[in-house]
Amino acid sequence: MDAISVIRAKRDRETLTDEQIDWVIDAYTRGEVADEQMAALAMAVLLNGMTRAETARWTAAMIASGERMDFSSLPRPTADKHSTGGVGDKITLPLAPLVAACGAAVPQLSGRGLGHTGGTLDKLESIPGWRALLSNDEMMAVLRDVGAVICAAGDGLAPADKKLYALRDVTGTVEAIPLIASSIMSKKIAEGTGALVLDVKVGSGAFMKNIDDARELASTMVALGTDHGVRTTALLTDMSTPLGLTAGNALEVRESVEVLAGGGPADVVELTVALAREMLAGAGVHGKDPETALRDGSAMDVWRRMIAAQGGDPDAPLPVAREQHVVTAPSTGLLTELDAYAVGLCAWRLGAGRARKEDPVQAGAGVELHAKPGDTVREGEPLLTLHTDTPERFEYALAPLDGGITVAAPGTPFTPSPVILDRIG
Amino acid sequence: MDAISVIRAKRDRETLTDEQIDWVIDAYTRGEVADEQMAALAMAVLLNGMTRAETARWTAAMIASGERMDFSSLPRPTADKHSTGGVGDKITLPLAPLVAACGAAVPQLSGRGLGHTGGTLDKLESIPGWRALLSNDEMMAVLRDVGAVICAAGDGLAPADKKLYALRDVTGTVEAIPLIASSIMSKKIAEGTGALVLDVKVGSGAFMKNIDDARELASTMVALGTDHGVRTTALLTDMSTPLGLTAGNALEVRESVEVLAGGGPADVVELTVALAREMLAGAGVHGKDPETALRDGSAMDVWRRMIAAQGGDPDAPLPVAREQHVVTAPSTGLLTELDAYAVGLCAWRLGAGRARKEDPVQAGAGVELHAKPGDTVREGEPLLTLHTDTPERFEYALAPLDGGITVAAPGTPFTPSPVILDRIG
Repeated sequence: MDAISVIRAKRDRETLTDEQIDWVIDAYTRGEVADEQMAALAMAVLLNGMTRAETARWTAAMIASGERMDFSSLPRPTADKHSTGGVGDKITLPLAPLVAACGAAVPQLSGRGLGHTGGTLDKLESIPGWRALLSNDEMMAVLRDVGAVICAAGDGLAPADKKLYALRDVTGTVEAIPLIASSIMSKKIAEGTGALVLDVKVGSGAFMKNIDDARELASTMVALGTDHGVRTTALLTDMSTPLGLTAGNALEVRESVEVLAGGGPADVVELTVALAREMLAGAGVHGKDPETALRDGSAMDVWRRMIAAQGGDPDAPLPVAREQHVVTAPSTGLLTELDAYAVGLCAWRLGAGRARKEDPVQAGAGVELHAKPGDTVREGEPLLTLHTDTPERFEYALAPLDGGITVAAPGTPFTPSPVILDRIG
Repeated sequence: MDAISVIRAKRDRETLTDEQIDWVIDAYTRGEVADEQMAALAMAVLLNGMTRAETARWTAAMIASGERMDFSSLPRPTADKHSTGGVGDKITLPLAPLVAACGAAVPQLSGRGLGHTGGTLDKLESIPGWRALLSNDEMMAVLRDVGAVICAAGDGLAPADKKLYALRDVTGTVEAIPLIASSIMSKKIAEGTGALVLDVKVGSGAFMKNIDDARELASTMVALGTDHGVRTTALLTDMSTPLGLTAGNALEVRESVEVLAGGGPADVVELTVALAREMLAGAGVHGKDPETALRDGSAMDVWRRMIAAQGGDPDAPLPVAREQHVVTAPSTGLLTELDAYAVGLCAWRLGAGRARKEDPVQAGAGVELHAKPGDTVREGEPLLTLHTDTPERFEYALAPLDGGITVAAPGTPFTPSPVILDRIG
């Protein structure tokens, strides 16, 4: 077996054999297949595709490249969620303690943000004292004691994916559905969760810009999970406008705590509850209704214990950015567009995100929304508040908003997109 | 400008801008664009193509990556030939002295063989004492004194191509017409020849298996040369069966000397004379007819002086392999197929070629043909003689011949392919 023959096969639109896939993933992980060879193969996969069977084998080979976690010693069934990433997507924060409060165990391995979408670990790190890095033993202890844990994935899970993801990032080969699906699912399956719900975002602020691509990605991932014995479902959800009223690290923690306190924006609550129901059904747990757990304080109780177990102080004041800038409504009428990508890029430029993996993020930076599509706004009244520690960036951060905000004449017929567009599984 | 945006543009079937092409070739040569990024771009070019204008700019950028030679101080116009490579293709050996004998100067920068096709330098190195490496000053001196020189290209010509060619070789991205054309032409244009004839081979033993691809490659290269002020024409020539009656290093030198002595196989003589006429016409030289120069010994005279000028002894006996094995005709009838690729692979396995760049070649190894397609053969009489210093390889070397030799019933209608299939330019 050699790399060139595998590359040529995919280049010439052949279906890769199981042996070719097993060999190339293993040899790449070991360094026998060079980065430039894998880059050429990734581009051939992007342009010529892979069948469902090839994608399944590719995923299995990436899982086999590393260790698998095992939660079978826990007294409760496990459930996990993965979002493909969006603007203002803080759902993991209220969701993990909520599902734990309803009776499942939630081992949530999360990542950091890169580009215009935020990362769950970055958000939680705005809580004074909280730390993302846990040993496997610490993670199991928090899961056992609290029922939910949100932490960084160890290096041992699917190392082939870790290496390939970094390569795809610099070679223009991220946007291939078989590679996206196998990347996400190899980590989630290796993590060992019993049930999984996928939140596949669709719209300007998401990776998938149209619903057909999102549906293809979702059904590929659901099939991969199911084939590996993980009860997997997917929701396709709207990402044409930010989720909730905040995009930024501490700003999103604040909003998450509002949801856990029984309040918060309607769309965040709706999606959190819907995803919780999917996870609980997948885990076969029917102990408590998620809406009740938000109302009666039991989800908040798990949140506080979860944060404290990882060194965080749930009562400490959250960081606030040094400077604010208010964007007012350009006219009076109906807000029909507040573009997710524009707001995401604005928050990123304010300091909420990072340009390179090594960069720090500003805990307080981000964007607060004072209206959502479908709301009536008045000329000159606040529409957005921008937060940053580096006010010299305001002009740079405001630029993406140009063309991303539309106010229609009062009375214009307009129906905002539903939060949940479809369910697969 | 950054590598990912250039890769994405070609991936998404956009036409690259001049600025993108100039930048990516320069940055790759400098090491700012990484091998894995160029590999992804090369695969995108292979699968999505480049326009003629993109290929022209790509070629110009590769020329600009290094030095250009200048033969304007020579008293005669220059002409050069490039072959895309075939089995038994020793044409450069008689051609360079022949064209010099007719009045043009021939600065022939050549390469070594890799895979089943032989390399001109490997062939000449079977002549005792002959050396391929000359300084620029030595090269100019031989050109001035003898009129023809065949030597290795220096590292200064089109270094971007040198780097890119090595990358394509290991990433399954060799077979892209825009990349093949720009690779060949960047070196030939940087070399500074005034006229160029391209011998584009078609058939099982060639890179291009069908005439449409060969025509596309030839017309792309002719346009590139013409645009850079090099008078360029191309012949499309048959490579379904080996050229002449030998494939191997010293074996091919012997046959070349036969041609220079006024004899040799008809197909080798026909192609040598046709290419010589193209070169002389391109150089605007009308001194002598090539057929006359082969008959009257003037081409042989230049050959002897050219070999001697590079340290070789034109009178020394050529190396002979230690062992021979005769392959006989399987039946009596008309030889309708003696497959070029089969013979090339056989010669390569006998030791005439190399598997890796560092490997040595055997001077005496190779295949001698006793019949050509169209000839009548008799069962049990010699069809091929295999030569090698390593007789333990005979079985391995014979394997490719299986299925590559066809003898039809006597009287079967059959017309061998003409040597020259088409002319472009």
